[in-house]
Order: sequence, then C-alpha cells, then structure tokens
Amino acid sequence: MNRFEKSTTAQQIRLERRLPSYWRVTFDHPPLNIFGPETIPQLNEIIMALETDERVKVVVFDSAVEGFFLMHYNFFAPLEDTTSLPPGPTGLQALPDMLVRLSRAPVVSIVSIRGRATGVGSELALASDMRFASSEKAILSQWEVGAALVPGGGPMARLPRLIGRGRALEVLLGADDVRGDLAERYGYVNRSLPDSKLDAFVDALAMRIASFDKQAIADTKRLVDVASLPSDAEISLEWDAFIASLNRPASQHRIKALMERGFHRPGDVEDRLGYHVGQLGG
Amino acid sequence: MNRFEKSTTAQQIRLERRLPSYWRVTFDHPPLNIFGPETIPQLNEIIMALETDERVKVVVFDSAVEGFFLMHYNFFAPLEDTTSLPPGPTGLQALPDMLVRLSRAPVVSIVSIRGRATGVGSELALASDMRFASSEKAILSQWEVGAALVPGGGPMARLPRLIGRGRALEVLLGADDVRGDLAERYGYVNRSLPDSKLDAFVDALAMRIASFDKQAIADTKRLVDVASLPSDAEISLEWDAFIASLNRPASQHRIKALMERGFHRPGDVEDRLGYHVGQLGG
Amino acid sequence: MNRFEKSTTAQQIRLERRLPSYWRVTFDHPPLNIFGPETIPQLNEIIMALETDERVKVVVFDSAVEGFFLMHYNFFAPLEDTTSLPPGPTGLQALPDMLVRLSRAPVVSIVSIRGRATGVGSELALASDMRFASSEKAILSQWEVGAALVPGGGPMARLPRLIGRGRALEVLLGADDVRGDLAERYGYVNRSLPDSKLDAFVDALAMRIASFDKQAIADTKRLVDVASLPSDAEISLEWDAFIASLNRPASQHRIKALMERGFHRPGDVEDRLGYHVGQLGG
Repeated sequence: MNRFEKSTTAQQIRLERRLPSYWRVTFDHPPLNIFGPETIPQLNEIIMALETDERVKVVVFDSAVEGFFLMHYNFFAPLEDTTSLPPGPTGLQALPDMLVRLSRAPVVSIVSIRGRATGVGSELALASDMRFASSEKAILSQWEVGAALVPGGGPMARLPRLIGRGRALEVLLGADDVRGDLAERYGYVNRSLPDSKLDAFVDALAMRIASFDKQAIADTKRLVDVASLPSDAEISLEWDAFIASLNRPASQHRIKALMERGFHRPGDVEDRLGYHVGQLGG
Repeated sequence: MNRFEKSTTAQQIRLERRLPSYWRVTFDHPPLNIFGPETIPQLNEIIMALETDERVKVVVFDSAVEGFFLMHYNFFAPLEDTTSLPPGPTGLQALPDMLVRLSRAPVVSIVSIRGRATGVGSELALASDMRFASSEKAILSQWEVGAALVPGGGPMARLPRLIGRGRALEVLLGADDVRGDLAERYGYVNRSLPDSKLDAFVDALAMRIASFDKQAIADTKRLVDVASLPSDAEISLEWDAFIASLNRPASQHRIKALMERGFHRPGDVEDRLGYHVGQLGG
Repeated sequence: MNRFEKSTTAQQIRLERRLPSYWRVTFDHPPLNIFGPETIPQLNEIIMALETDERVKVVVFDSAVEGFFLMHYNFFAPLEDTTSLPPGPTGLQALPDMLVRLSRAPVVSIVSIRGRATGVGSELALASDMRFASSEKAILSQWEVGAALVPGGGPMARLPRLIGRGRALEVLLGADDVRGDLAERYGYVNRSLPDSKLDAFVDALAMRIASFDKQAIADTKRLVDVASLPSDAEISLEWDAFIASLNRPASQHRIKALMERGFHRPGDVEDRLGYHVGQLGG
C-alpha cells in the first residue's frame, strides 16, 4: 500500500509478479478507483501480458483503496475519449474487448472484492473466472438502470448464465447494492468469507493453482468456455446500447442530479449509490 | 380484499393501477384460485395492456385468496374449451402464448407468492421476471407427473435454466411441494422472506423500479432475454405433450382418484397435493 | 453389505431389483472403488438394461465400500485396455458414451453419495439426474488438473450448466475436495443431508417416483433434456483432451509422484486427494 510507489506517474493499476506463475493486479486510483478512458490502455497492457506470458498461470485482482474495489465509468471524461479508442483484437470496442479477452485468456483470473465493485468493477468481476468477496466489506452492483443507463460491459450476457434469469433481472433492474453474503446466496460471487480470512483464502487458492500444470489449466478452461461464455455478438449489443443510453436526456438528467448530490466525490453518494439512485424520482 | 367488489361479474383477476407506472394484479377466485379456460381471456387482456401501455414499468402479481396464490388447471372444464381458443400473436396456443409474452413484455413482472403456487401458478411465476415468497406460507410445485401428466406451461424449458438440471428434475419428477425456504436454496424463487416482511419488501422494490426510466428498463431486460429465454419452439413442444398426456388412461385414472379424495374442493387434497399424488399407487 | 455375495466373480457392481420399477446399483469394489477399463462393460450392461427394461422407472446408485462412493480411473491399467474398447451406440468412446446414455435414459437416475466421489465418481454423479450427499461423509472432486490431466467424462460441459461458470472453474481448476455442505451451496448436489437421514430420504424419493407413470416421467425428462443437456460433440472434445493429457510428461511425472506417496492404495493420499495434489509442486 506504499503510496510513494505511484509518485509521479498516472499509473492507476499496479502489477506485481509475486511469482513468475502468480501475478497480482491492484487497482490504486484513490480516492474512489473510478474507471475512465485513461484506465483502458493500462488494463489492456496487463491483459495482453496475461495472454502472452508463457509462465503466468493465475492472476488475482484486488484494490489498494479503502472502501472501493473498482467503480463506475468516469462521467467527467468526454465521451469521445472512449469512443475514439480503436477496436481491440476481437473487433469489439476497447472496454468490452478487454473483458472478453480476459475471460478467454489461458490464465486463471480471480477477483478478491473488498469494498464497492460497481459498474466496470462488477463487469470485470463477472468477466473473471472466479469471484471471492468480503462478507462485511464487499458491495457489488450494477447501478446503471437507476441512472437511466443500460450497462455496457457484458452483465446482461453474463449474469443470467451465472445466477439465473430471475436474480439477474433483480440485480440489473433493481440496480441496488448487493452485499457479500447475498452475493454468495445468489451465486454472484463464488463465496463470501469473513473479511479477516479473505486474503489468506484467495492467496492459498492462487498459490495452489500456480503449482499446477499450465497446459492442463488452459485446456480445461477452454472446454469450460465452450459451455459457458456468451458470444462476442451478445457482448457487442450491450456496448452499443450503453453508448446510446448515454446520449438520452433521461440519463443526462439523472447523472446531473447525482452530481449535485456528490457523485464522483468521496461521500455518501458513492458509499451508498444504491440508495441514492432510488431517490432520483420518476 | 373486499369481496363485494367482485359481486355480479365472473371476474377472477383484479387489476389495480396503484400508480400509472406500477400496477397490481390480484388473483381473486375463491376458494382455491383454480385456473380454467375462462381465466385465459381475463389474464390475456391484462398482458396486452402491459405490452402496450406507455407508462407502466412494473407489475406485481399476488393473491386475495388465503392459502392459494394460483393453482392448477380446472379439470372439470371440457378440454375443448381450452383447445378451441385461437392461437395468440406468437402462434402458440393461448396459455403458453400469454406466458411467453409476459416474459418479453417491456415491463418488470414480479410475483409475490403467499400460499400455494401449483401448476399454472408455478408456471406464471416462472414466466415472470422475479419471484419472492413467504417463508412460512409459500408452496411451489409442479404436481403434474404425480397425476401422469406432462406439465404444459413451460417449466421444463424454464426451470433447468433457472436452477440447473438436477434440481429441475427433482421438482418436476418428484412432483412434490416445495416450501419457501427450499425454493430459495434451489433458486426457484429469488428470495423467501418472513411472511410479515414480504409485502413491504415487494412493494419497496416495485416502487423503486417504478421510479426508474422505462426505456432503460426495457432495453436492459431485452438484452437479458437474449441470454436467458427459451425459444417459443421449446415452449410449444411442452404444450403438445401436456395435451397428449391429458388423453391417456393413466392420467384419467389418477385424476379420477384425486377427485374421489377431494381434488378441486377446499380440504386436505388441495392443501397437501404433493402428499396426495404420492398416495395414488403404482 | 454381505461380502460373500461377490465371492469368486470379478463383479464390481451389484444390481438389485428392489421392485420391478425401482433398481439399486451398488459399487462394491473394495478397498477404494477404483474404476478401470474392466468396470466399463459391467456398468454398460446395467445402463443397457435401464434403457430397455419396460418396467424400471428409477435407479439409485450407491456404494458398499466405506469411505468411497466411486473413484478415479485405474492408472495401473494399460491405456490400450481403454482405448481399444469399441465406441458405443452414440459413436462416442465407451466411457463417455455410457454417461450420455444414462443422462438420456427414460429412467430417473439418483446418486446417493457417501464417501469420496472423485474423477469418474463425480462424472457419473453429474451425468445422473439428481445428486444427494451425506453432509458429514460425502466428498466430491475433479482432481485431474492437480495431476496435469484434463478431466474426460464430461464435467467441463456439465458443471457450468449446473453451478455456473465461476464455481465450475473453481471446482475444476482448484481440483480440491468439496464436502457435502459446500456441494449443496454450490449446487453441485441437489441437497446434502445429515448422514443418518440420507438413506431414508433417497429411498422415499425413489419409492415415490417408482409409483408414478413411466410415460409421464420419460416425456417430462426428455423435454428437460432439450433445455439442459450438452451436445455429444462437446462431450467428445473432453474425452480427446483427457487422452491427450495422459500422454504428456507433466501428467506422467505427477501421477508417478502420487504413486510414490501412496496413490491407488488405502491411506492418506486417497483419503485426502485434494490436499496431496496441492503438494506436488510447480
């Protein structure tokens, strides 16, 4: 957590190679770990390394920012900063491209969720292979419908396959905060663990997988992919719907109202986003 | 619950527009909320209104009849009263047509289950977007195989996608009563709640969704549909199998045996239908 | 449990027709219920009988061996003993052929898991219709990746559809032991029950289903199959990947290391296989 490390760069994501076979990726963009267009190339560089490194077998994503795992998109950034990014290798736009490549990478991805995983944070978690959450401190949410937006990073394709249509619709259309224990009951995360045990559990699982054979891991995962991954076409529809929703007066009105309440700043709106999107009125 | 409201009409379903954006649909056909061919046009009228009204965003289905949410088909009605109904807009027969249209309607459908949801009651719940149940008072079941019938309203297509093949086969082939808490563990309902808290929970969720933007709701739901709805062709196979099963001696024999025990009348057979279909012998 | 019954034959599986409609299949190959190429024709004969008998409606699989339900493949048997078996009626190789035929048989298959269900044991459980486990004594696992193998009997196709991609990847890539209660939370089994109640529960469910109409059971199951079974092509890919993985130095090295620790013999390695595959190093 040494803040001096980041000093002069705008680097928001730290990569630590704990072993050649076991990497840690830590979101460290205080105070809120908001995800913006400038975050995309940083994350993309890491995902490219995961795709091509011959020794890495497992990667754990976590956060160095108290209270926030990874958050929604940056609504202060001009939309053009995002839409002008070139499409990625899959032909999808840059953000969904990265997420589908993470799902298919020949590496096991594990998210360790402490604090809020909202918007892109939830979408990265859903695109990863496994999700573990702090019972006391994890909050997952897809808040977008509460702001008259359509989520854009794949949750309509991924959540119903993971937790069933009914609970997926509740998460997406209720747009409310989901705490660790409910997330486990719903299957939104693999397990929620007492906060004091989360790090040791995830580290032991990662070390275990890092001791296994890379080809057996990659071949087995690839066969699970056949049975469980949505097509890129499905993911593409979501991104288009998200971009279209950004341009509608209803979302601009609601995001402005959230801004007036304190959105994008440390405080109650970001801490209890589920509550606040329910207060914007009809 | 004022019984005077229904007075002279044969109306079995009440529609209340609590807000222009939030409707309540209440099954009120005492003593058992049995679903018959005459119920179909009444429910169809409501579903057509949900499809076309420009302001409604959320609908809650509940029951005004103590002990019964919504029940099995009326076996006293001549089969021709059902099979002579014209197909619906999807080309499916009237009952499955309504259910698939409810699933696709640009409106959020929530069932609040208190009492028994058996047969059509379970199938309407499964075709709806979200299901919440009373821990103490909800009973869900697909009883049909216990009467030598094949269910007809879509549960073979919908249950495995919701709760997995193993639990779906247990519900369908065990044909037993499933109480609220087990229904939650299996994912058959989103959650079961203490009976005293069910109404407030469902109402708060509906009010919350009613405050959101209709287009964001509809666009997000449509993308979940892509990932989670069975095809109409799958639903069609089930209706055909149900009708064929009605004409077989095995089902006629078992339904007659149930009638002799008190089926279709208030009492132990309808209260404990799971038990009684297990007593009909081999 | 009368061991005298098996006396002089090499029969590893006992078939009891408790009723013409209700069969029990008991794995009885002490000390470990290891599954080898010689087990395949024995199990195949039973599955053919289940497919063709006109009276059987339900079959329960259990074990007569303390501590072991059904285990991994026999690594002492020459690979040719397996690969030289002719393909089955589906065109798949003999082992996956049997499992997909069990899934499609017009009979309800229930596994009652007490002791370890690892490798083929887990794969048979997943190919069956319903799974019930002893809370205290059941252990499920797909241990293969821990030995640098790819599982071959269908779990990459079946587990994600049953428990979702995230938990399936944890089971398959973590390769660890999963006890009864976690197996229920994950949906890997329908339910885990106190060991003292497991037999009575499974027997009552089997007797209940045996009292139902065979055609209604078969027709209903067939429609669930449409919604939930993987294609044979998906299953075929897994078998090929398993065979290929057997021939790689990484797996031969790890299986040899396990043998030196006591694999294939009663003792700590087979009792705690999840632990031991985690000790083989990177």
